[in-house]
Amino acid sequence: MDTLTRLEATIAQRRKASPDDSYVAKLNAKGLPKICEKVGEEATETVIAALAGTDAELTGEAADLLFHLLVLLGAKDIPLHDVLAELDRREGVSGLDEKAARTPD
Amino acid sequence: MDTLTRLEATIAQRRKASPDDSYVAKLNAKGLPKICEKVGEEATETVIAALAGTDAELTGEAADLLFHLLVLLGAKDIPLHDVLAELDRREGVSGLDEKAARTPD
Amino acid sequence: MDTLTRLEATIAQRRKASPDDSYVAKLNAKGLPKICEKVGEEATETVIAALAGTDAELTGEAADLLFHLLVLLGAKDIPLHDVLAELDRREGVSGLDEKAARTPD
Amino acid sequence: MDTLTRLEATIAQRRKASPDDSYVAKLNAKGLPKICEKVGEEATETVIAALAGTDAELTGEAADLLFHLLVLLGAKDIPLHDVLAELDRREGVSGLDEKAARTPD
Repeated sequence: MDTLTRLEATIAQRRKASPDDSYVAKLNAKGLPKICEKVGEEATETVIAALAGTDAELTGEAADLLFHLLVLLGAKDIPLHDVLAELDRREGVSGLDEKAARTPD
Repeated sequence: MDTLTRLEATIAQRRKASPDDSYVAKLNAKGLPKICEKVGEEATETVIAALAGTDAELTGEAADLLFHLLVLLGAKDIPLHDVLAELDRREGVSGLDEKAARTPD
Repeated sequence: MDTLTRLEATIAQRRKASPDDSYVAKLNAKGLPKICEKVGEEATETVIAALAGTDAELTGEAADLLFHLLVLLGAKDIPLHDVLAELDRREGVSGLDEKAARTPD
Repeated sequence: MDTLTRLEATIAQRRKASPDDSYVAKLNAKGLPKICEKVGEEATETVIAALAGTDAELTGEAADLLFHLLVLLGAKDIPLHDVLAELDRREGVSGLDEKAARTPD
């Protein structure tokens, strides 16, 4: 099983643990806004590491961002598979041409 | 090959295309700060979708965030594999206990 | 009248305009999540300008951030005065000691 | 003197204090990326409070955001006055028409 799928399963399991024992359970106990806060925070840290940090820092922050995105998807009962299927769909049907049409402003 | 690995390869290929033909090439031509901007933007949209949107919107925004995170890693020549290895390392060596120790504030 | 108070009044007035004529009206017509998106976006751009831009760029992005924060407060019917009063309260009662107690992590 | 101008002066003074005594000094000692991190974090919390919190929470988060924006401007030696002058300039010269022309995407 690939890393993210396995991590998704671990997170699902950890959600059932006691908040005293598990970071994931603790975060879920604090509620969705707190999970969202962490996603926003890790995204900011990823951007900062990309602009002003080392490669190791960016790697670590990107890992933190992926981790908390999986916690968020888990909290909303959205399977990672659905997100990956959406990426496949975009690439499969129309290549990245759909994207190419969008001008970054 | 899994979705993200294939997408990483597609992005690497698209970076060599003309900015007129490819969104990825266009974004890279605009430079790292613009790529960072998109990562921050998509993270904000992910958070907003989680709090105020539908599941389909969150799925789409999470896909956008993953896509732009891969564009950022590509622009910094950091293999997705390194980020996944970091996630494996954290989980493998110490479980999520390392994480559990950290109190979300 | 100072700049932000005057801008707050202008924004309140513009909210009543037609979305065709006014950016503020247009943004409000799109709804709170879109306004939040702009606040998040401008904050990201402020951070990026601070790390990788010129002083003029940072000045412009900070202005954009303040502007959209006022649009958000207006949309939620929160007077800027309340936010300033909160800043006064924090500084007045306890100096920045309250803040000093908080360790940035 | 208005709140933000006074707060700007307080922050400038606090920057010279010992990091042990002052939150502002501590944050500056940690460096610009850490200050940027706080700005991004408070913006995310502002957005979350607007979508999922009380008015008091939004007021508090907006105050935090303004505070840390002033810390950032101070760290970059950009006077708040320059940012306000930019807002005046945009409003004075062309009204918010300049803004109106921009379509929020």
